[in-house]
Amino acid sequence: MRIGELSRRSGVPVPTIKFYVRERLLPAGELTSPNQAEYGPDHERRLHLIRVLLEVGGLSLAAIGEVLEAADDPERPVIKVLGSAAKGVPPLGEGEAGPEQERARQDVAELLERRGWQVSEEGTAAESLAGVVAAMRRVGHGGLVGLMDLYADAAESVARADLDYVMRQVEREDLVEGVIVGTVLGEAMFGALRRLAHEGVSVQRYES
Amino acid sequence: MRIGELSRRSGVPVPTIKFYVRERLLPAGELTSPNQAEYGPDHERRLHLIRVLLEVGGLSLAAIGEVLEAADDPERPVIKVLGSAAKGVPPLGEGEAGPEQERARQDVAELLERRGWQVSEEGTAAESLAGVVAAMRRVGHGGLVGLMDLYADAAESVARADLDYVMRQVEREDLVEGVIVGTVLGEAMFGALRRLAHEGVSVQRYES
Repeated sequence: MRIGELSRRSGVPVPTIKFYVRERLLPAGELTSPNQAEYGPDHERRLHLIRVLLEVGGLSLAAIGEVLEAADDPERPVIKVLGSAAKGVPPLGEGEAGPEQERARQDVAELLERRGWQVSEEGTAAESLAGVVAAMRRVGHGGLVGLMDLYADAAESVARADLDYVMRQVEREDLVEGVIVGTVLGEAMFGALRRLAHEGVSVQRYES
Repeated sequence: MRIGELSRRSGVPVPTIKFYVRERLLPAGELTSPNQAEYGPDHERRLHLIRVLLEVGGLSLAAIGEVLEAADDPERPVIKVLGSAAKGVPPLGEGEAGPEQERARQDVAELLERRGWQVSEEGTAAESLAGVVAAMRRVGHGGLVGLMDLYADAAESVARADLDYVMRQVEREDLVEGVIVGTVLGEAMFGALRRLAHEGVSVQRYES
């Protein structure tokens, strides 16, 4: 299809599509004449993916570029793509060497030990979690840290289902895309469900 | 304490503190002379809360203003504060009256029915969830929608623990603050734990 048709089908304006091509987020179309390129269903799918990462995931264009580069590199292990797909919660208090941050890192290390999760402790997710724990204490709600194991149970059951889903994908391309979409949209799905559950469970409790 | 001491203790620069006061995010200090105001521990705690909502929650200053206004209004039911504390996932596809969005709204309505959650279906969370479901299908990963019930189980167990926590707060101020902090930091905590679980569970599977 021509770029105009791609724009109509995806809802993305032509100049934006051209911008994505220049920024290497989207492969160029196949030139059929010096001034005309042909686009296919892969382009359309990639465009939808970019929009989802932007609009639901809140990723920056630079972050999307990194994720897609990892996705397109057949040598890259899938687990590493997962890492770059993980939307970075700004690791609050990073670099602060205060006793609060140290204590929170220790809490996270002990949790990982308890659960038998072998992960890079210096990774973004572990550092983010420590930042969240430190922040809970800083605002006077350290009691919330006591919910961490229960949250970890829930997170593990969700993560197992995520992994089962992506492992069912036969093609590497679908697998990698499933990881990206699952990471970003799964987080948004859980967040919305948790807010609905807050309201729904509150109503049940008030009624009974 | 003076504003300089408040700045030192909270790590927030003096001009920023003055800006928060002008924007009514932070109550003014008590004037002890025409040019000097005295601040207390409540100011320090409020400053930490603003920083957390900004840096971890990613809320805009306008959104923080609304949340704090709801928190400070003793007439406002706590459940409504929860609503304004809920970080809005941009409801992707909102306004689009396409069949995809309609089908997703139907899926969400059926889920709410199955779980017995009485919530405002037009609320932000329900609309966000429908947007996520529609987006999953649009990027060719409608299979992820099949995980929604399992995600809802996990979300409900987390939400019950959240509610138990906030209900243990005796003072309304602590309760409302617990709701805000729990909503925003709880979401960040779960996100980080899920990413850690992805990695930890993957390693366990590859090893066995």
